[in-house]
Order: sequence, then structure tokens, then C-alpha cells
Amino acid sequence: MHKTPFKPDSVQVLAFDIFGTVVDWHGSIKREVQALYPQVDAGAFALAWRAGYKPAMQRVMSGELGWTLIDDLHRLILNDLLAQFGLSHLSEAERGQLNRVWHRLDAWPDSVAGLTRLKSKYTICSLSNGNIGLLTDMAKRAGLPWDCVLSAEVFRAYKPDPAVYRGVAKVFDLDPSQVMLVAAHHDDLEGARACGLHTAYIERPLEMGASKLKDVSPQPGNDLHAVDLNALAEQLGC
Amino acid sequence: MHKTPFKPDSVQVLAFDIFGTVVDWHGSIKREVQALYPQVDAGAFALAWRAGYKPAMQRVMSGELGWTLIDDLHRLILNDLLAQFGLSHLSEAERGQLNRVWHRLDAWPDSVAGLTRLKSKYTICSLSNGNIGLLTDMAKRAGLPWDCVLSAEVFRAYKPDPAVYRGVAKVFDLDPSQVMLVAAHHDDLEGARACGLHTAYIERPLEMGASKLKDVSPQPGNDLHAVDLNALAEQLGC
Repeated sequence: MHKTPFKPDSVQVLAFDIFGTVVDWHGSIKREVQALYPQVDAGAFALAWRAGYKPAMQRVMSGELGWTLIDDLHRLILNDLLAQFGLSHLSEAERGQLNRVWHRLDAWPDSVAGLTRLKSKYTICSLSNGNIGLLTDMAKRAGLPWDCVLSAEVFRAYKPDPAVYRGVAKVFDLDPSQVMLVAAHHDDLEGARACGLHTAYIERPLEMGASKLKDVSPQPGNDLHAVDLNALAEQLGC
Repeated sequence: MHKTPFKPDSVQVLAFDIFGTVVDWHGSIKREVQALYPQVDAGAFALAWRAGYKPAMQRVMSGELGWTLIDDLHRLILNDLLAQFGLSHLSEAERGQLNRVWHRLDAWPDSVAGLTRLKSKYTICSLSNGNIGLLTDMAKRAGLPWDCVLSAEVFRAYKPDPAVYRGVAKVFDLDPSQVMLVAAHHDDLEGARACGLHTAYIERPLEMGASKLKDVSPQPGNDLHAVDLNALAEQLGC
């Protein structure tokens, strides 16, 4: 099939996946857990926490759980995890504090500079399954210069539900083709493409840590493929 | 009744009313209408448009209309207004373009500097009946440095519905007393107080233009009363 070349000017809004695409959840959680609980395999702890994420959202989307914020899903997963990693003794306050590590994730080194460049030409927003409070705390701490914090919480549906991708176009009164999803995950980008959004893949080979390198080779279907957000800015003429 | 003195450190989030409090809707609309349609009394046009706002929201909150974004309510009001001001000949495209003047409102001269100071100590967000797209376009154009754009659209209720005031506390997982509403309208502040939020009144004597000066004398009940957002930053130690 012949594909029309992508025109940067046809897009007005760039919507960003957050966990893994803009911030380094694995490295950030590993560092914090290592510092607090040196007896724990902190890298494995981070991976296990994240592994519980999709099944937990699935329980919401299937109707087994009512609408639940990611903060609360993270907490449900954490409660199970602590027993597994010998941390059952943690108090409620310590659990609450640890759970908020997702509000304190560090940006990848290129994120702030790349987003700042992209913001000069486009409206940039988050489009994450994370809740609004989490995303706002994270942006304030890491200096992520969003024009707008959009979240599954606004649409009451989790990606890859079409309501989320269509929702961002609707919020800005645009055709879906005037929105581009930027993400490091092919399933997310596929979901967006199915709704008519443009897509850009960002390589984040270290998303799951150096011991579990991710295959970041280009896949067909995306309009753009970039090593990081500065490279994306370059490709979009910012 | 003895009132406990307000402690700035008890608050974490400042939520701002927008139309009239942060941006000058009257002056901005008057300037644009004057430039486009010099035959029209542009000040009266701006006042009439705004006067349709509360009754239109009332139609939504009473259930007469389903959930409707402010962009669409502004358009409904505008359609009636054009006949009244001899502008029935405007095309659909011209009406759409004029309706988006609400996305292009200018900030009061102190707003960007005041918000920037307040942002250094607090999480600052909009809390407006305006829709997310409108508020985002406005912030990008006027340089309003929100940490987060919150809108009636997120809560599917219009101020002064308690769901909006309680909603902002819930989004940030805070007690309502850890949130302060900043507004130039007493009914808005009253609604927030009834839900347990702190409140700050901002004097905007020119909100409805120089020919319709607003009484901005202090009223009991508010924790703070400031001439503008720089004065508020001063009072809050920013």
C-alpha cells in the first residue's frame, strides 16, 4: 500500500505517553527502593510492580472493578508485592509514601529539552493512564512543560480504549489526523492509529533496565521513528 | 464567631477562576469586535455575550440541555446576539472564528508575573467553567504557567456545583482545606467555602469595563483579599 508522506504541519497537538516514553520508571523506582531497602533486589521490584499494571487496568476495563485511579491500582499491586519481597512489615504510612514514587519519576535526559522545543510549534499534552494528580506532581518536580495534563481520568477509560485517543481530538475540537501520539510502546501506537491519529515511536531501549534491553527496531505503520525527543523535535522542524 | 487566622502553609493547591479573575474578557472581546465590526457597540456586545453565560449553564445543570461545553454554549448565545447587533449576515466560518475569541482573551497585566511567583510555592491550576481546549489555547497564547488545566469538563458539572470544588481536592488527594480558590466573584468563593476550601478574593474593578465599575470592597468570609495576583503572592509569602 502506498503511504502518503507525513506532513508536520498537518498536526496541531502532540500527545505523549508518559511511563517509559517521557520518564524512566524503572531507573527511578530502582534507585528509591535501593536507597530505602538495600536488602531488596530493587530492579526486580520495579519490574514486578510494573508487570502488575496491565492486569490491574484490565480488571477495571472488564468491569470487575469500578473506575479506579492508577494511584489506587499501584497501591493494590504494591500490597501483594511487599510480601513477595520480604517487606510485609512496612507501615501504612511507609506504603503510602512508597506508592507515591510514581509521582517522583525522573525524566529521561532529553525529555525537558525536547518537549520545550516541540512546545514552540505544537500544543503538547500528556496522554497517560496515570491520574491527573500523579501527572501534575511529576511534571512540577521534573520540569515537564505541558500545555495541558490529559489523563485517562478525564475520559474514564484506559488506553488502548479508543475513547482515550478520540477524546484528545475532541478536547481540542480537531480531526484525529491533527493529533500525533508519541510513545515508546507499539500497542499504544497501534491503538492510536486505529482511531486515525498520527504516531511517532521513541526508542527507549533502557525502559526496563540494562539487564532487560528492549528491541527498539522500527516497525511499519508509524509516521516517525526517533531515538529520543530531541530527535523528534528535529524531524518535526522545531 | 472567632476565626482562626489563615496559615499560608496549610494550603498546597491554588485553584483559579479564569474569566474576569485571570483574563480580561470584556476588554479583549471589545477590542476584537471593535476591530472587526466598527459599526457595533462592542462594549455592549461583550456584556450581552457574557450575560447569556449563567442562564446557558443553568439550562445544562437543570437537565434541559445535556452536558455541553462552554464553546458550544458561547456559540448558542452568539447566534441570538448577532441578530440583536445587526450582524445576522455573518457566515458560519465568521461565527466560528468570532466564537473562538474566548480562546484569545488577554491576561490582566499582573497575571503572568503573579502566577509565576505563586507557582514557586504552590501547585497552581485553573478551575473554570471553560472547557479544556479553550483554557489550554488561552494559556498557551497568554503565557499562563499552569501546572495543570482543570475545568468543569473534567467533573462534568459547572461551578458553583459542589462536585467541582470537591473535585479539585480529590484530584490531588487532599483535604478541601488544603486547596484555596482564587476568584473575583463572591458567588464562586461562597460555593468553594461551603465545600471547605480556603478562599482569596481578587479585586477586578474593570471586569465589566470602565463604564460599569464593579464594587470590590472586602466582604467577610474570605481568608485573603488582594488587589491583584502580585499582591496575593506577597500575602502568601511568594
